[in-house]
Amino acid sequence: MTILLATDFAGDELTQWLTALRSALPGETLITERASCDAASVDIAIVANPPAGALAGLPNLKLIQSLWAGVDKLLRDASVPVDVPLARMVDPAMNAAMAETALWAVLSLQRGFFAYAQQQRVAQWQAHPQRRADETRVTVLGLGQMGRAVAQRLASNGYRVSGWSTRETQIDGIDARCGDAQLPRVLADAQIAINLLPLTAATTGLFDAGTFARMRRGPSFVNLARGAHVVDADLLAALASGQLQHAVLDVFATEPLPASHPFWSHPQVTLLPHVAAQTDPRSAAQVAACNVRALREGQALADLVDRRRGY
Amino acid sequence: MTILLATDFAGDELTQWLTALRSALPGETLITERASCDAASVDIAIVANPPAGALAGLPNLKLIQSLWAGVDKLLRDASVPVDVPLARMVDPAMNAAMAETALWAVLSLQRGFFAYAQQQRVAQWQAHPQRRADETRVTVLGLGQMGRAVAQRLASNGYRVSGWSTRETQIDGIDARCGDAQLPRVLADAQIAINLLPLTAATTGLFDAGTFARMRRGPSFVNLARGAHVVDADLLAALASGQLQHAVLDVFATEPLPASHPFWSHPQVTLLPHVAAQTDPRSAAQVAACNVRALREGQALADLVDRRRGY
Repeated sequence: MTILLATDFAGDELTQWLTALRSALPGETLITERASCDAASVDIAIVANPPAGALAGLPNLKLIQSLWAGVDKLLRDASVPVDVPLARMVDPAMNAAMAETALWAVLSLQRGFFAYAQQQRVAQWQAHPQRRADETRVTVLGLGQMGRAVAQRLASNGYRVSGWSTRETQIDGIDARCGDAQLPRVLADAQIAINLLPLTAATTGLFDAGTFARMRRGPSFVNLARGAHVVDADLLAALASGQLQHAVLDVFATEPLPASHPFWSHPQVTLLPHVAAQTDPRSAAQVAACNVRALREGQALADLVDRRRGY
Repeated sequence: MTILLATDFAGDELTQWLTALRSALPGETLITERASCDAASVDIAIVANPPAGALAGLPNLKLIQSLWAGVDKLLRDASVPVDVPLARMVDPAMNAAMAETALWAVLSLQRGFFAYAQQQRVAQWQAHPQRRADETRVTVLGLGQMGRAVAQRLASNGYRVSGWSTRETQIDGIDARCGDAQLPRVLADAQIAINLLPLTAATTGLFDAGTFARMRRGPSFVNLARGAHVVDADLLAALASGQLQHAVLDVFATEPLPASHPFWSHPQVTLLPHVAAQTDPRSAAQVAACNVRALREGQALADLVDRRRGY
């Protein structure tokens, strides 16, 4: 029984992951090259951006464990066997990292720190009125593991937080709504909207001209989920018209974001290179190892993806 | 009995303060021009950057209530009568604003968001390793009302927080030290040092070459207190040598910071125009009104400054 690590990791990053996984999985055989063993011996694949076709022709595969939280790319890869249980990464350390990024974006927007950074570039000394956290309404779209961590962190720091998800969810201190009919309502109320939805057929292109028009005039938009949730041209138009005030974007339709893309130099866009919640090898290896042990011991697997739902 | 509002407020800001104070002080006579009444009738002065000499020649003054938290400038003004009780502003809303600014600075430093902002300017897509909050040691210098609020907010967001003050202070979850002998120790340990000390003879110029040399190599420095705490030339030298990695500065020896000052364009300096905790007229007027009522009713005055101590 062999575990295949199928990934585009290289160099130091690959070394770091192998060290963490080997330490979390004593007694297991972990390989990175399929050619180095009999394909029939591979029963578990641990994946992070696997090369195309990496999981094809593994007749005894029983578990695909992703090291990333988002599995939309895996579900689009026709060579990933559809009858093998697929688990996504649910790591408290990643949830905390996402909550930190969302909190930083909200603090920056609430208190005008992005505007002050612009002023520093032109040596402009100018104070602006200060808004309180409890006067700042933040809507978190998507209340899965990460959305929930974000909503709770913002509420504990004094913000007025509402949330929206497709399924009913209850979170202490959060005004949580669900279903398509409630979406316009939570959007209309938001001063800051944070996208943490999974990428599915229903959410692709959700943030388009129609959605931005449903928001109160002048809110800010924070995308920490997937680039394909957003119609870039509509976002740029909403910023230009004043419908949106500012956008904080961590994810993009094409990554790395091409150097010619207008987001890079846009004064109303703050851009991160997909780092809102990086997987931490130390904790993620432990999470993956839990599922490996569960499989070996015939226990229930955690965090399995519902392929019909898409996450 | 008349209350004199002695300030350099003008225009909308003055209107906002007068509205808030009149609403908080029904039945009181509030004036902004000394000439408009008999000097002997003024028994309370509410001050915020009072013009020089504004408090001289008021024979029946019984309370000077500052609208700012810091009173160092008032204590240096020889025309402010030394035998009249002086109260500084202690407003929970200001403490919360200060905690937000400190948290934003710490999040930005911990997660590299200042570095990513630099990268955006040159369209550079490059992720950096992610550090956890519980791996980030923050030292808060000064554990008064604001330092305490900052230390608690950082601890509740998962940071490893230590504190230092001249007098012994106990705060849950904080490793609080006191006295000159402990200062080198807390500095040596800090990855991020936040200055929230009062400005006194003992703390003026505290952050000089000697202090920066006592810190571990490569920490960051956040100054949210007073510009005169820092020797600017030594700070620039510490940034140039790599002894300090980054500085977040809200306060300066001369404000507004002159356009020619090297801080403005320094890539390792993030600069705010003294907005870390602006006084909010709505809540501060209520706090001032409490002391006015206490005086009228012969009750004890709150938040009086110890002029010998200097804060």
